[in-house]
Formats: sequence, C-alpha cells, structure tokens
Amino acid sequence: MSSEPCALALDIGGTKLAVGVVDADGTVRSMLVEPTRRTEGPDVIVPRLFDMGRRSITEAGLTVDEVSAVGIACGGPLDSAAGVLLSPLHLPDWSQLPIGALAAAEFGVPATLVNDASAGAWGEFRFGAGRGTRSLIYLTVSTGMGGGAVFNGELHYGAAGNGGEFGHVMVRPGGRLCTCGRLGCVEAYASGTAIAAYASELVATGAPSSLNELDAITAADVSARSTTDPVAGRVWGEGMAALGVAITDLVNVIEPDAVIIGGGLTRSGALLLHPVREAVRTSAMPPAGAAVRVVLSELGDAACLVGAGTVALDRHLAASKGVTVHA
Amino acid sequence: MSSEPCALALDIGGTKLAVGVVDADGTVRSMLVEPTRRTEGPDVIVPRLFDMGRRSITEAGLTVDEVSAVGIACGGPLDSAAGVLLSPLHLPDWSQLPIGALAAAEFGVPATLVNDASAGAWGEFRFGAGRGTRSLIYLTVSTGMGGGAVFNGELHYGAAGNGGEFGHVMVRPGGRLCTCGRLGCVEAYASGTAIAAYASELVATGAPSSLNELDAITAADVSARSTTDPVAGRVWGEGMAALGVAITDLVNVIEPDAVIIGGGLTRSGALLLHPVREAVRTSAMPPAGAAVRVVLSELGDAACLVGAGTVALDRHLAASKGVTVHA
Repeated sequence: MSSEPCALALDIGGTKLAVGVVDADGTVRSMLVEPTRRTEGPDVIVPRLFDMGRRSITEAGLTVDEVSAVGIACGGPLDSAAGVLLSPLHLPDWSQLPIGALAAAEFGVPATLVNDASAGAWGEFRFGAGRGTRSLIYLTVSTGMGGGAVFNGELHYGAAGNGGEFGHVMVRPGGRLCTCGRLGCVEAYASGTAIAAYASELVATGAPSSLNELDAITAADVSARSTTDPVAGRVWGEGMAALGVAITDLVNVIEPDAVIIGGGLTRSGALLLHPVREAVRTSAMPPAGAAVRVVLSELGDAACLVGAGTVALDRHLAASKGVTVHA
Repeated sequence: MSSEPCALALDIGGTKLAVGVVDADGTVRSMLVEPTRRTEGPDVIVPRLFDMGRRSITEAGLTVDEVSAVGIACGGPLDSAAGVLLSPLHLPDWSQLPIGALAAAEFGVPATLVNDASAGAWGEFRFGAGRGTRSLIYLTVSTGMGGGAVFNGELHYGAAGNGGEFGHVMVRPGGRLCTCGRLGCVEAYASGTAIAAYASELVATGAPSSLNELDAITAADVSARSTTDPVAGRVWGEGMAALGVAITDLVNVIEPDAVIIGGGLTRSGALLLHPVREAVRTSAMPPAGAAVRVVLSELGDAACLVGAGTVALDRHLAASKGVTVHA
C-alpha cells in the first residue's frame, strides 16, 4: 500500500499486451504480460486488457481508487490529444477506437494515450539511459522500427501526435520496398522483419550459407552468425550500415544529447551498437557528432510502460497543481 | 524615436554583412547591407561590422543607449551559450572568436549569438510564415544549405548549439561528394553551388545544352532553363528530387506543423516548391504528411536579422521580468 500517486500503464502491442502499476519514481510494480491474440478483435481484447489492469492493481496491493491516472502506449498512427487510435498499422481492426475515453470510463481517472516509442523516449528520459539530458532521440529496432524524441526537456508529440517516424528515413533511394510504400527506408533494411526476409531471399537464391539449416530464419540468427557466415554477414552488415546512416542523419538534424536504442535487436549488443557508433563518429557533422552519446536502452522491455505511466502521472501532478501541460 | 525596446541585429555572412535595428514587433528599421570582403580578416571586418551597427542605430533615429540587446547571427559551428564562433565554415579565419563578448563590450548591452539558420527559423516563427505554429523546420537553400527548428514553441539549439544541419541528410549513398566529407548528402545535390557545379560538369563532358552559351553557369540559370534544356532539366530535377527526399525524411522524423524554405534558390518559386510539396504529399507517412504545410519564407533576406534581433530582445524582456530563458 502506498499513499504516493501512481498510474496504471497499458502497452498495447501487436504481439503482446503489457500492463503494470508505475510509481512516481518510475518503478513498475506487478507487471503482467500476455499474448495479444489480435485476431480476436478489440471487442474481446480491450475488456481483457482492462481485466489485466485490474489484476495488476490488485497484485500491487492497491485498489482502483488509489490509481491517479491511466497511461496507454500504442503504435500509431494515433491522435494523442483526442485519445483515439486512428489506424494502427499493427492492429488493423482498431481504427478510430477511442481507447482513451474507454480507459477513463473503466478506471474513473484521466487517461493519456501516447505513441509507444514516444512513451519509451519519455521513460528513458526520466528514469533510464537519458537521465540528465535535455534532448534525446529514442529508436526501437524490433519487428518494425519506431522512434520518439524529447526536445528541451519536453516530450515531442509532433503536429500529428505521433512524435516521429524514425523508421522512415530514406537510406537507399530505389532500394528495398518499405511497409510505408517508399523504397529504401531504413526500416526496410534494419528491422528484424527486414533482416530475416532479406536473408531468406538470399538463401532461396542458393547462396551458400549455414542459415540453410534453419526452418525459419530470424534476425537473431542472422546477428549470431554475422561474423562467420557470408550471407548473415552481408545482411547484418547492410542493416547496420543503414541504421548508421539513419542515425547519423538524425544526429545532424536534431543534435541530441543522446541517441538511445531499444527494441528486440538490442539483444545483439555490441554487434548493433559498435557499427552505429562508428558511423556517427566518422560521419556526423562536428560538433554534433562529438556531443552525442549513442547508448542502448536501460529500461529495456519496460521502457514503454514506464514512459506511458509517467506521462500520465506527470499530467495528473501538473493538473493537481494547476499547471497547464501541453497536450 | 521610440520608447519601445529594440535590438541591434548583426548577420555575418561569408559574402555580405547585414545589420539592422529590430523592434519588438519584428520590424527591421534602417537595414544596411555591405560586402563582407572576407579576405580582410576579422581584425578589420569586426570593427567595420560594429561601425555599421552604430550607423544603423543612428539612421533609425536612436542612440546606442536606446538599444536593449544585440543579436548576432552567423554560420556554424559555433557555441551559442558562450557566444564564441568555433570554426565557421564560411569564415575560416574567425575560429575561436568571442564575437558575443566583443559586441557586448562595444554596445554596452547583452549580446546573444545564434546560428544563422536558427535565427531564420525564429524570425519566421515569430513574424513570418510560421506564425501560429508550435513546431516548424526552416531550411535555407542558397550557396550552401542550413536549417533551424522550433519545437513546442521553443527555438531548438541542440546539444552543440548549432540547432540542426539539414543539409547533411544523406539522400544518395555513394553519391556526390559533400563539403562535409560524406557522399550523397542533400547539400551535394540541391545547394546552389552543387547545382551549378553538376551542370558545369555535364556541359564539360559535351552534353548538348543551351548552358554552353554561358561563361559561368549559376543555379538560377539551371532553374530558368529546367523546363526547356535537357541538362538543366536533369540537374534541377535531381536537385529537387533530393530536396524532396530530405524534406520528406524531416517531416517523418519531426512531424512539424510547417516546413519553411528560404534562401536564394526560393527565387525559383514554384519550380522549387511544387516538386518538394509533391514529394511530401506522396511519400511522407500519414498523418504527418497531411498535417504539414510546406511553404516559402515570408521574411526572405531579413529572416536572419529579424530572428537574431528577436531572440536577443526576447531574452532581454524575459530577464527584465525575472524569467529564466533556456540558454
């Protein structure tokens, strides 16, 4: 039991739902993770998500009355100010869903909807690898790619409330087809899906490779064999080169204090971080390149939950002090 | 004569010096423009610049005592917080020059140094094409390319105080050599220098072109003949395509309310604006692409002066009210 304010955080992914109670110091209590089973559709999944929320509150030793706010993280496009999912790419059936209003009605407190990568950026800024910075960019490199940014100490929402699509920086004009329809975006080279697909294509053409042994090639396989297998080396190398170009562009454009990389592919550690750092070191404009730290996420899988809960809690605390917070 | 506060603004370019008195409503009074004659070096040029400042104050019907602040715009790299030019690319002899301290001593009021494109961004935000926005990006396309940004109503300085190098977004990996040393930056395709050089190279290889008639090809020549001459059409087309890719990347990454394009090449009007708008419309991620306005500068050549004067004046007014302004 705690008299400190806390928020319920809901992270709605295409593969899994994550829920937890987030304290004012960024601690996640009673985190629950379950598969999304997205074919069930929002009519089934949303009540299940809210039930996870109630269980999480109970497991934290709290009652619903003791929760001050709900923070919801989801992939875009979404309308953060209105609390509405517009047409989330990972959840095609959820278009125009007013998830903010539904959550506010369910739990009886204000709900804040934020792009999941923006939530991650805020989590890292407040309690992770971005503590002490004024401006940072946060990239997730996972099934897809996403991004969020903090500028001058404020979470950047962007005109459309999505706060940055860092996967859609073009790195190879006329190159591989991206999910967005453009050719040559960084996501088409460096996401887990893209790396696995590219390696599978090369293996299918008969290129000699130990990846042939596998039933289904994953990005983790490609990374693990990148120093010993020629196909894996080429695909991983091109992916990390693309990521290095995109991050160098972002450093030149934004001049952040820190670039923080999260998402599943960071399990490759130095195989991901070192080529990106080297690209920034050798190619970014001085003095931006010298000023930036390029680091891996500290909060890992919890970054979005921590960020969504903290955004909601920061708004609640500001509102209770009569301070206006930018929507 | 005016009892309203006003600032002296100094814009230090590689080709010309511009000076003016800027009122609190963004009006530039008594603007003076003279050639830089940069071979004379800073020991000669800085006193001449300050003399221009004194003449500008006099011509505005004021005395030095009536000026509240000095705003200085210059190309980077520079250290805005310290008021020091680090190693300005367009003024190689001016490295480590403490221009802020020199100006403050000369005029007896606080001086603020800001990247020239950041100044342009702030000028357009306060009094130009960016009025009413919360976030904008401002690009100058001229001899070189530069950029500045306003995020959430605040001028973005960046970790290194240069606030964004929008010319160094890579659009053609392995492409033309950029002044920064990377291959394929947008500046290597879309700056006036790059467009003139590329057209000259093609003409020198014997490609049939009416540009052959000219002693020296300029970007304005290329633009003017782009709809009738094959070489001009190709070079201008590639330049505008590169600019379209870079601006689409910036829209995806930042999701600004507006993209404002300034600099000498905007004299080409629709020949520049239309292909860029079309690229953003067809290629940017929804909803960011739908939310953004892509427009030409309203303040034109005065954008940097207005911005530098206004930044200095805003700081002065904030300081006199006891408000802390982010350095």
